Parts: sequence; structure tokens; C-alpha cells
Amino acid sequence: MNEKPRQPAEPDPNQPGQTALELINTGAEWLRGTGRACDVVVSSRVRLARNLAGFPFMPRASRVDRQQIVDLCHHKLMEAELADRLLWIDLREVSRLDRNLLVERHLISQAHARGKIGNHSVTGGRTGEDEPRAVAVGLPGERLSIMVNEEDHLRIQVVKSGFALAEALTEIDTIDDRIEARADYAFHPRFGYLTACPTNVGTGIRFGVMLHLPALKLTGDIEKVTRAANDMSLAVRGFYGEGSEPLGDFFQISNQTTLGKSERVLLHDLEHEIIPKVIEYERVSRRQLVERRGEAIADQVHRAMGVLTHARLLATDEATRLLSQLRLGVAMGLIEKVDQQVVHNLMLLVQPAHLQRASGRNMTQAERRIARAELVRNRLAEAVTRRA
Amino acid sequence: MNEKPRQPAEPDPNQPGQTALELINTGAEWLRGTGRACDVVVSSRVRLARNLAGFPFMPRASRVDRQQIVDLCHHKLMEAELADRLLWIDLREVSRLDRNLLVERHLISQAHARGKIGNHSVTGGRTGEDEPRAVAVGLPGERLSIMVNEEDHLRIQVVKSGFALAEALTEIDTIDDRIEARADYAFHPRFGYLTACPTNVGTGIRFGVMLHLPALKLTGDIEKVTRAANDMSLAVRGFYGEGSEPLGDFFQISNQTTLGKSERVLLHDLEHEIIPKVIEYERVSRRQLVERRGEAIADQVHRAMGVLTHARLLATDEATRLLSQLRLGVAMGLIEKVDQQVVHNLMLLVQPAHLQRASGRNMTQAERRIARAELVRNRLAEAVTRRA
Repeated sequence: MNEKPRQPAEPDPNQPGQTALELINTGAEWLRGTGRACDVVVSSRVRLARNLAGFPFMPRASRVDRQQIVDLCHHKLMEAELADRLLWIDLREVSRLDRNLLVERHLISQAHARGKIGNHSVTGGRTGEDEPRAVAVGLPGERLSIMVNEEDHLRIQVVKSGFALAEALTEIDTIDDRIEARADYAFHPRFGYLTACPTNVGTGIRFGVMLHLPALKLTGDIEKVTRAANDMSLAVRGFYGEGSEPLGDFFQISNQTTLGKSERVLLHDLEHEIIPKVIEYERVSRRQLVERRGEAIADQVHRAMGVLTHARLLATDEATRLLSQLRLGVAMGLIEKVDQQVVHNLMLLVQPAHLQRASGRNMTQAERRIARAELVRNRLAEAVTRRA
Repeated sequence: MNEKPRQPAEPDPNQPGQTALELINTGAEWLRGTGRACDVVVSSRVRLARNLAGFPFMPRASRVDRQQIVDLCHHKLMEAELADRLLWIDLREVSRLDRNLLVERHLISQAHARGKIGNHSVTGGRTGEDEPRAVAVGLPGERLSIMVNEEDHLRIQVVKSGFALAEALTEIDTIDDRIEARADYAFHPRFGYLTACPTNVGTGIRFGVMLHLPALKLTGDIEKVTRAANDMSLAVRGFYGEGSEPLGDFFQISNQTTLGKSERVLLHDLEHEIIPKVIEYERVSRRQLVERRGEAIADQVHRAMGVLTHARLLATDEATRLLSQLRLGVAMGLIEKVDQQVVHNLMLLVQPAHLQRASGRNMTQAERRIARAELVRNRLAEAVTRRA
């Protein structure tokens, strides 16, 4: 535990936001807007829930236990060569703004940012901002992130752009094996990997696909998708996962239970049955919209571009809604001077923490609206100039 | 009456819209957006109501009378050298679309386009599209227009850009004298010029100023202006005069009665008392808006530009509303790449008849929305390119 990690990757608390800026500037692979079915699928993610043998599950772990888990994970993960560079972020040492930024980047959960132990109801009143917890982020590209002391001791996540669940699974399996070679996981011969919440017991795996479904939202058929998904024990969530509202027509579809189903069966169902059907449903809806209301769709998309490139005040909600319309326009070939990566990056950059870090200062809501409009204008102008 | 007018200025009925296109392309002086107080005042107009001695007033004139009046006026006006070129338009010989275009250009009234005798209630059921009536338009610039057989035998109008009532009066006096040198006006030594409607008896003059009052509209203080104006026997009307709704925050203020007041008193009241107060009120309101809600105003103005330059569908109302916001932006120096003449021209070009003539074909409302958006985009793009 006293061994120094090999890489000088800790954020310097004297330079707040340095890590945040590095993340913003390096960029995440899943924002690229490339890959299979990228007209509809933004990203594919696989998440594993793992716990260390010999420690109580999070809700029952003492503060000493939890500190020991953080220290042990820090040591083992940094040693495991999981990425070109593994950035270790002790969440007690970064500002609330930067924790929010990590949430906005989908690297940690809201609960983890706040020091709550996942969504588990048994928190025993011991949670808070100074809870021992961390996140390790694989650089460059942020394909890998590992939350330490969220609901489970380890929540390992691999994200890729486009529809790539199988590839993400292969990648996370390798990472899981490397960690398991150094750490002793809690495992039961009959139940499989043991987790704090029973829904994750077994493979402890969750597949999630983030889909952009503006046409299904517009026609109202998104309700059918949600009902059908729920019937198949799938969850349909918003852009920011559990409990979040659908934001700009982005929806995450993921499996809810893992006990009793193998990884391969879960993957096959999503990769070859369910998600392709949703993708096709959205594509057919888009084609029908173009046939039946082509001018109105083109009008909406171009107006979105017009407002984004001209507004002097932008609230997060409106910016997100307009960016979603812009994304549809890019996917349909109506907007040629902007690519999906620009749109995806802006989806993050317009969020409050990103906006403040990118602007280099803390701001009131009124100031953020001005800065958000300016940032969006500048980024889109740059994008258009690059393409011209 | 058999004498041929000197100028070959009649529209060719075999080439519908030729006259319309000429007017659109030559342009009207009052659309220039220049002149005194042009941040607030669009244009100043003076109108004289005149009747020929020896003929009954319009409501009582027979069809034969009315035809004779048209023929006589045609002859006398063409002879009088009232403009570089006087375009004579027999309103029975042009299409309804072109008559609407003349209305949109403020050259004739709605009633005149439809062949109704002014707004007079005694029409005797004799009015209609084939009523003998005409308009003479002074080219280039359309500063002068003379309706023949509207409510009075002659309605002479001079329009200038900016706040220029005195100049317009000087100009119309010269024109009136030239006509009177050739035609015998109905005149009563005690009452003055006699008119079909008693409100115009006396000088038969109406002064009108078209003001752009977006700030007073926004603050609601326009109600105070309207009440004060009404108390002073002034009418506050919309962009298209009598009975028209305020369109895009444009308001016409004009005197209602002429009996018993000299031209000079009427002019002095408007030119030195009333209109300057309204102009100052609007300017103060604009300054206060900038101080108190500067960001919101800039946002609104730039969004208007964004939508105008990007929309694929535009209804007349929305286009007019956005152009009004753009005009405010230009007046306040927020939009530098467009000048008021472009905005004013677009105010006309987005109207249905102009749009169809400029596009060269008749269109349904749905087609007009597409063509309107395209025309606005192209004109603003041209304007921005010219300035770049």
C-alpha cells in the first residue's frame, strides 16, 4: 500500500480544473460519432459490477474498510496496465464542479459524485462528500473508467462510439481479467460474481446503448419502444442514466437484471434482436418524416442551426434540444458543414460544469447563458470554417 | 380625350407582371431607410384629396361619369410633367395579383384594388373589379402616386423616406399646382377643397408618418401613444393603413380631420410637436431596454437574423415580425452587415403578391412559405456578402 504508483497521474489540487481541462481537450472516443449505425447509435457501453473478497459490501463497510478499498484499488489498478495512461482521481480531492464535470462526461454517477453509496437504500447516514472514493479513467479516449466505492467496490465501464457492444465486451473482459489477476473478487460458485444489489448478481454485467431517437419521439412511437423494452426487462433511460429525463431525444437502453442469464445471451438479445429493431424503427420513421413532412423537418433542422449560430443567450435545455435537432440534420445529410463529433462535444460542453471549466471561471446561471451561447457560436463557426 | 399620351408607359397586358417587376426592381425611394430620424421613422407621406369640378362626387357619379374622369385624368396627368416618367396603370387591365402588389407597395388602397369607392358607405352596388379606375405612379422612386376614382376623383400622394413631412408638402404642392393648372378642381370659397367625405373637406390634406416602435410595443407604452394621439384627433394605424393590424411594430400616425385647420398648422403640430415626442419616447425606451435587458434584446435580434437566414419555411406574419426585430437590431448597431433598405425591401417582398411576382409564378400558400424563406435567405446572404 505504501508503494508509489508508477504514473504521475494524480490531479494537482493546487491547479483546480487542470484534470477537467485535460479531459475536455483530449476528448472521449465515444463522442466521435463514428462506428456502426452511428446515424442512430451514439455509443455502446458495458459495465461490470465487482467486489473485493475479504471486505464487506459497500452499505456495510466501515469508513476504515472503504479507505482500505480505495488504497488497494489505487495500487492494483495502476499496476494492471489497463490503458496507455490511467488517470486516478480521488474524488475527495477535486472540487464539486469537477465532480459534476465527471458526471457530465458519464465517467461517474451522480451518486458517486455526491459520495452516496450507489442507489442502495441502506446508507446508514455515513455518506457524504468526504467519503473515500475514486475513479480511474483510461487515457487517451476515456474508453475505460472504473468507479471505486460506488454501489460496488468496483464499477468497471468500457464505452465505444457507435453500435459496438461485442467489441466493448471483448475489451472489458481483457480489463476484467487483468484486474482479477491482481485482486481477489467476491465470487460464488453457484451465483457468480456477488454484488451489493441482487439485480447485479451473476455476471454483474450491464450492457447499455445510447440511441438518438428524434423521429420516434416526434411520432410518439417512442412510447411503444419503451413499453416493449420494459416487457423484455430492459430499462429505457435518459442521457444521464438512471432517474434522468430524456434530454434532446437521447435514450439509453440497458438490461436490468443479470442473474440467471449469461453474458453471451444478454449480448445476443441486445446486439442481434432488440437494438437493431429499434435502429430500424427509427430509420423508417425518419424516412417517413422526410417523405411526408420533408420541408417541415428541413425547416426545423436549419432553424436549429440558425439559432445555435446566432443566439446570445442559451439555457442548457434549449441548447440540448437544438443540438439534438442538429444531430438529426447531420445524420440526414441536411447539414453538411458540421459533423457528429462537433455536435456530441457540444452536448457535453453546454452542460454547466463543462461550460465553466471550458470558460475558465465559475459563473452564475445568467452568466452561463451568455457564455454557453458564445461557446456554441464559436465552436460551430470553427466547424463550418474547417469544412469550408 | 382621343389624344395619345406622350409616354409609352402602359403595362402590356400580354406580359402580366411586367409592370410589377419593374416596380420591384426599380425600387421605391421611401424604402431607402435614410433621412432624418430614420432609426425610428420609415417614411413620411402627404396626401391630397381632390375632385374635378363638373363631375358628381364618386358615390353619386354614373359609370359614364367615372369613365370620363379616368380618361380626363389620364390625359391631363400625363401632360403635366409630374415626374421623370409617369406610369399610368388602368386597374381594370392588370391582374388581381398585380393590384395586390400595388397595395403592398402602398401605391393604392385595398378599396381601390377591389374597385370599391373608398370607404364610403354609399356605394350603390355599382362597384367591382371592372370599375373605371387607375393609378399613376411617378418613376423612378415611386415618390408620387395618384389614385383616380378612389373615394375622390384624385388622391395625390407623395412619400419620402425618413422624417420629411415639410419636404413632402413642398413637393406635393408643386404637383398639385401643375395639375390644377390643367384641371378644374371642385373648390368652395368658404370651405376650401370639396371632398366626397366631409372629414377631408378644407385643405383635403392628410399627413402620415410611418414609425417603427418596437421598444414602445415591448414595454406596452404604445397604448399611451395611441391614446394621446387619439385625444389629438390623430389616427394610429398599422403598416397597411386604415383597418390594418399593426404589423411588425410599424405604426402610421396621421391626422384625421382637415376642415378648419390650415396645412401649416397641421404640419407644425405633427412636425414639431407630436412626432418628435413619439420619436424621443421610442429612443428613450430603446436606451432603457439596452441598459436593463441588453443581453435579452441582443439575443432576440440575433436570433431573428439566425432564423431569417436559416428557415426553410416562413409565413408572412413570422417573417414580418422577425424583420421588425432585425430592423431594431440594425438601428441599434447590433447587426452591422445589413442595412435598413434591405430590411424594408424584404418587408414588401415577403408579402404574397410581391413574393409571387419576384418568383415569377403563382403559388399556393404552402409553396409561398418555401419561396419566402428562400428569398429572404438569398437576399440576406447577398447583403452580408456585399458588406463583407
